[in-house]
Amino acid sequence: MRVLGVDPGLTRCGVGVVEGTAGRPLKMIGVGVVRTAADADIAERLLLIERGLEEWLDEHRPDVVAIERVFSQHNVATVMGTAQASAVAMLCAARRGLPVALHTPSEVKAAVTGSGRADKAQVGAMVARLLRLAAPPKPADAADALALAICHIWRAPAQDRLRQAAALQTRLQKGSVR
Amino acid sequence: MRVLGVDPGLTRCGVGVVEGTAGRPLKMIGVGVVRTAADADIAERLLLIERGLEEWLDEHRPDVVAIERVFSQHNVATVMGTAQASAVAMLCAARRGLPVALHTPSEVKAAVTGSGRADKAQVGAMVARLLRLAAPPKPADAADALALAICHIWRAPAQDRLRQAAALQTRLQKGSVR
Repeated sequence: MRVLGVDPGLTRCGVGVVEGTAGRPLKMIGVGVVRTAADADIAERLLLIERGLEEWLDEHRPDVVAIERVFSQHNVATVMGTAQASAVAMLCAARRGLPVALHTPSEVKAAVTGSGRADKAQVGAMVARLLRLAAPPKPADAADALALAICHIWRAPAQDRLRQAAALQTRLQKGSVR
Repeated sequence: MRVLGVDPGLTRCGVGVVEGTAGRPLKMIGVGVVRTAADADIAERLLLIERGLEEWLDEHRPDVVAIERVFSQHNVATVMGTAQASAVAMLCAARRGLPVALHTPSEVKAAVTGSGRADKAQVGAMVARLLRLAAPPKPADAADALALAICHIWRAPAQDRLRQAAALQTRLQKGSVR
């Protein structure tokens, strides 16, 4: 499974591509940041993010796109931009028929460090270790994007089982399965 | 000037096209709502909104797109979806090289009713009167989209003058104009 992780943001949108399956060593395919100027028009910034993400999708052809789930309880000034950047990422994936998975920051931290309250340095260190990199990727947004991809690879089997269980339950309730 | 007004929302995204210039009678060209199912996937909903807006842009070829400016102090549960729907609208406009204008709800209300705190019924009534419609457009999201377009047509001349003044000031400060 090849996953494009996206840490959405207007100024720095982290992107990272990881290949692997749960229980096997992971491989980093690429990592980077799509940047837009803070003084640019918001519409223009969203367009630049779209173009940047399209390039990553074209080049790396992921099977799924994992995006950080945005919460509104964070800093009110930045959360709107984060929500808008994440909308662009979801749209780019959906347009290609790629599945979109959302993971919360604490799910991502817990997946790669064992603690949902790990700090940036800890996440960066574990990303470097898991992907066998010489140093944590910089900036933190790039490391976070890789962490999202790793989190998805590890959580996907459990999420699939949950989805299958939920689908079975629905069918049982409707009486289509006995 | 032909303006596409967009009242962004995931469940109901209001769209309205108005043609006119400040000080002259306005003409409604079209009005409607792009709907998506509340139980659908968020990525899928954003894709449907994009497709719906693309159809409106293709059919009506506006000169500018006026979108409601989203504030984060509103209902936290709905504001994220509104921000994401507005990102899609901005992206569709920017991709075509169309200017995007953002107006706050109170600017829109003040423009069409004279009061920034007018209620939905008042906005609907004034939209109907200004566009010579038999009744206020339903649902309110459709009427709000038309109000946004009207607001833009009326505010655009003043906004242009402000932009020109700001540009002149910048040039004066840089010493490129004496």
